[in-house]
Amino acid sequence: MPEIQDPIAGLLRTYADAVYRKDVDAFMALYDEAVCVFDTWGVWVYQGRQAWRVALEGWLLSLGAERVRVEAEVMRTHCEGAFATAQGFMTYTAVSEAGSTLRAMTNRFSWVLRQRGNAWTVVHEHTSAPADFETAKLVLQRQ
Amino acid sequence: MPEIQDPIAGLLRTYADAVYRKDVDAFMALYDEAVCVFDTWGVWVYQGRQAWRVALEGWLLSLGAERVRVEAEVMRTHCEGAFATAQGFMTYTAVSEAGSTLRAMTNRFSWVLRQRGNAWTVVHEHTSAPADFETAKLVLQRQ
Repeated sequence: MPEIQDPIAGLLRTYADAVYRKDVDAFMALYDEAVCVFDTWGVWVYQGRQAWRVALEGWLLSLGAERVRVEAEVMRTHCEGAFATAQGFMTYTAVSEAGSTLRAMTNRFSWVLRQRGNAWTVVHEHTSAPADFETAKLVLQRQ
Repeated sequence: MPEIQDPIAGLLRTYADAVYRKDVDAFMALYDEAVCVFDTWGVWVYQGRQAWRVALEGWLLSLGAERVRVEAEVMRTHCEGAFATAQGFMTYTAVSEAGSTLRAMTNRFSWVLRQRGNAWTVVHEHTSAPADFETAKLVLQRQ
């Protein structure tokens, strides 16, 4: 059986690096042309890379001079042929221009990945945080 | 190439039927022993079938004499060997003992499935609804 290299770690590094550098092209290169994204915030579904790019640009623009550090904690990955999945947590920490920590939140993430040629891309991303039963408000700090 | 039969439709019918009948065993048979669930409500992660069963039992018990009709709208499925994924929407409608509609909410869902022998089971489930940017409250009606 050929050894299948887990593509997840490399993609997560690229994700975190692209967000920190606010590099839209590097970020979008992670995603398949026909990606389907269920994002934590505001919109039921982003269909296709162009729709997702507009959302990303809006987010990065809203940061002003701040930057965001992303730390991923992978719970589980699975690879089968040209197909892979990963589940875990991502913590987003906003950092001021001077380098001080401003706020942080954690999301759960699920990724479905496809390999085309040598490159793996995200064909489905689902991020969320659990909601409080009483208030329906997101709980953004992991207990 | 062997034809791969899409297992998703059958699993979704079993899901809806088991919820409507409040049949815990039929519902739990959908899930892998080591399932990882990111649920819309209350808890960051349910790890393993036993933890998920406790959550399901709590939900069904909270319904009293009400029943819940589930309608799934599948956006996309993909099968590769013994591995499959699906994404879409599930609408949960609470119905009174007398048969009248009480309330409804919609969730997004992502499933990752594995085939073992002839049976497919859910190894990962992620459900959520998008949160309003201002209030961080879930939007439970799909626009």
